[in-house]
Amino acid sequence: MIAIDWGTSSFRAYRLENADGAVLEQRSAAAGLLACQGVFETVLAEQLAGWDDEPLVLMAGMIGSRNGWHEVPYVSCPAGFEQVAAGMLEVSAASLPGRRIFIAPGLSDRPAGGLPEVMRGEETQLIGLLGQLEGPGPHTLCLPGTHSKWATIEAGRITSFHTAMTGELYAVLSQHSLLGALMNRDADAQVDDEAAFGLGVATSRRPGGLLNHLFSVRARGLFGELSATQLPSYLSGLLVGHELQGLLATARRVHLIGGEALTRRYKRALALHGIEAVTHGEALTAHGLHRLARAGKLIP
Amino acid sequence: MIAIDWGTSSFRAYRLENADGAVLEQRSAAAGLLACQGVFETVLAEQLAGWDDEPLVLMAGMIGSRNGWHEVPYVSCPAGFEQVAAGMLEVSAASLPGRRIFIAPGLSDRPAGGLPEVMRGEETQLIGLLGQLEGPGPHTLCLPGTHSKWATIEAGRITSFHTAMTGELYAVLSQHSLLGALMNRDADAQVDDEAAFGLGVATSRRPGGLLNHLFSVRARGLFGELSATQLPSYLSGLLVGHELQGLLATARRVHLIGGEALTRRYKRALALHGIEAVTHGEALTAHGLHRLARAGKLIP
Repeated sequence: MIAIDWGTSSFRAYRLENADGAVLEQRSAAAGLLACQGVFETVLAEQLAGWDDEPLVLMAGMIGSRNGWHEVPYVSCPAGFEQVAAGMLEVSAASLPGRRIFIAPGLSDRPAGGLPEVMRGEETQLIGLLGQLEGPGPHTLCLPGTHSKWATIEAGRITSFHTAMTGELYAVLSQHSLLGALMNRDADAQVDDEAAFGLGVATSRRPGGLLNHLFSVRARGLFGELSATQLPSYLSGLLVGHELQGLLATARRVHLIGGEALTRRYKRALALHGIEAVTHGEALTAHGLHRLARAGKLIP
Repeated sequence: MIAIDWGTSSFRAYRLENADGAVLEQRSAAAGLLACQGVFETVLAEQLAGWDDEPLVLMAGMIGSRNGWHEVPYVSCPAGFEQVAAGMLEVSAASLPGRRIFIAPGLSDRPAGGLPEVMRGEETQLIGLLGQLEGPGPHTLCLPGTHSKWATIEAGRITSFHTAMTGELYAVLSQHSLLGALMNRDADAQVDDEAAFGLGVATSRRPGGLLNHLFSVRARGLFGELSATQLPSYLSGLLVGHELQGLLATARRVHLIGGEALTRRYKRALALHGIEAVTHGEALTAHGLHRLARAGKLIP
């Protein structure tokens, strides 16, 4: 089968062994949704060229959103493999003869009296990890990123989740605010001054709130407490610290899913809160889509 | 005398009666710091044309910052008229013969173990209000804006203050984030849907933290709980609510200083917290500069 993670700014495809989901080949392209409006089918046909033996194509991510190829309704929490698999939508594509093409649904959570939540794409990674968690839980999982997702998994089902706009806020503040103007932008790419990051995390626990703490990026820079090169790490620590303050709840152990640089920073911030972190790579998407294909009886 | 409020993006000048500080004439120009780098003296000479009888010119605001005309060192809290007046710096301007030109200092607050804080310009408004506050206090004052300032005044002195980057965060999120893309930007200018604003303030009091609550702008929009026209008011309510959560502390009554539209919104948010608000206009700057001139014995 072919598993595809098709997001707003990226496209990743994996050719998988049907029997065990092993990745045989993988491809990626700068063919995110924004670049493909109106030509999804053509782009997909191009990207699958040469992988002609695989009839099944299963996609996840923003490709199933209102601005994607076909909008696939969200599946409500609590949800495990079966519920997500039951929400998959088959799409027809005349220029891809001999293929069966499905888009996996995203998840929604609308607790009574709580804030509504949605995800598209991350649920596949959560499902990829489901079988690897020991015991019934509850397990706390965090996928840090532009919109970090915090999920609780109990007895094999995603029971609830929450989003924090940490990565997006970091980006808009660095690029468009007064704070960004004070920073050494060359250092932006790394955000890796451990002491400044740690000071940011510690500051997030003070009174005053995030809107007040953000101004300390300016004031600490002005008084020479932090250099222009340290300010990006400090801002990152402040924001990650506030994300943990808000969403860590009572967890004593967190499963982190993501790239190496990002999970390393979150692991450090969790350690400063006295919380143990278990790190998992991003390769879970293909594994999750394989499990969904099996749960949906699309492969033997 | 002439009192000038010279900020990053605006220039306002007032011709005052020396005896009582009454405003005789006023002028404003789009001649903020950013537009005047290197030509401050020339711009000032142009702006003062025709006001030739007034030898004394006293300025406040970012004109005294590192990126202004002359950097004037901050005066430390606690500070009243006398301390601020003692920090005024006289600058020489060859093209303005017969004038004495002073720049008022900003304030800094660097509490032991706390976050450092700075202000430039707002201290003049606080000083303008000093004589109007009844009793020794402590009084809580809030100047909402791009960088809102919360100050405590006790026995005629500004004893401490805190900044919240509320207005700037609203602007960068509206203009540069995913949230802005979901909003009806025409409605941006007003931000005046009372119900949506109130829902934002109420949501700010929930668990999850600001980074999580911000995502509810998207999710509530997606589920049709709020319209694209209501989202700017909801975001404003969320941010103002978080500002109050962080900085209101134990105040039961807040003096608001600012323009009508902004103070009305803060008054509404304070009322939702059960806090009384007393509103003051922005005209306090000229009054404050007059009091400083008198404290500095620059006018009889």
